Amino acid sequence: MIAADLNPALTPVAFLLGTWRGEGEGQYPTIKPFRYREEIRFTHNGKTFLIYTQRTEAIDTGQPLHGEAGYLRLVGDGRVEFVIAQPIGFAEISLGRVDGQRIDVTCASVGRTPTAKPVTSISRSLWLDQETLRYELRMAMEGVPLERHLEASFRRTNA
Amino acid sequence: MIAADLNPALTPVAFLLGTWRGEGEGQYPTIKPFRYREEIRFTHNGKTFLIYTQRTEAIDTGQPLHGEAGYLRLVGDGRVEFVIAQPIGFAEISLGRVDGQRIDVTCASVGRTPTAKPVTSISRSLWLDQETLRYELRMAMEGVPLERHLEASFRRTNA
Repeated sequence: MIAADLNPALTPVAFLLGTWRGEGEGQYPTIKPFRYREEIRFTHNGKTFLIYTQRTEAIDTGQPLHGEAGYLRLVGDGRVEFVIAQPIGFAEISLGRVDGQRIDVTCASVGRTPTAKPVTSISRSLWLDQETLRYELRMAMEGVPLERHLEASFRRTNA
Repeated sequence: MIAADLNPALTPVAFLLGTWRGEGEGQYPTIKPFRYREEIRFTHNGKTFLIYTQRTEAIDTGQPLHGEAGYLRLVGDGRVEFVIAQPIGFAEISLGRVDGQRIDVTCASVGRTPTAKPVTSISRSLWLDQETLRYELRMAMEGVPLERHLEASFRRTNA
């Protein structure tokens, strides 16, 4: 692949570019709280979207826990569209805004396979706090409204 | 990340594992036919799904054309669930079967952002023909039923 210049449309989200490593913690009304190690990557290919991948692993064993992949589209006037596939059989179409060094999105629709968990919505906030990238993720399931599920913080690496 | 043994549930799709490079051609009632270069990767992390990424580029310039990412879930009795995110603002929940060294899936539902092209369904066939991996992709859009759109063939690489 050729190396591409950053598309000017991506300037508002250029603060996300790179590989980020950190740790997070999860909670939900139905589960025991847990901690995890995480790596997030945002790359680009010259077009008007960021390419997003993420994976988490157990802090003690390194065992893979979760992963997801998708695309963050910049569609003008600070509006963002985040399309994410999850290996639990779940796809998000999330919409929101970038405001300064902060992005907030919420599911406009979700797709689920017949065997997926009954996740009905996710909302995500992602922001740069000085040199620390942070996110919070809230999740709704059948019978449970949007509740805090995950939060994590990261430092940019050179990997 | 720790290296993981292949989950036994993935044995029926182990023929997909690896990095594949090849070329394809696209057509559709509304466009001029075109050729492209493509790389597909199927990896795993010990769980019951394959991790899928793909990207295409122009044969002459190397310019990025398309990319997608997702997960191929094996859910028993040869049933597969393919969750795919596309940077055009599109997410597929596709269902189908693996039969020998061939997989056929069709969209059970699609998710689209407000700015996405009006793709309404995709069906995909992917099969190993001796040492050549091949796929065919059919696409429906508003006003156009499922029509042949892409076909490509690949050799496994060591990259």
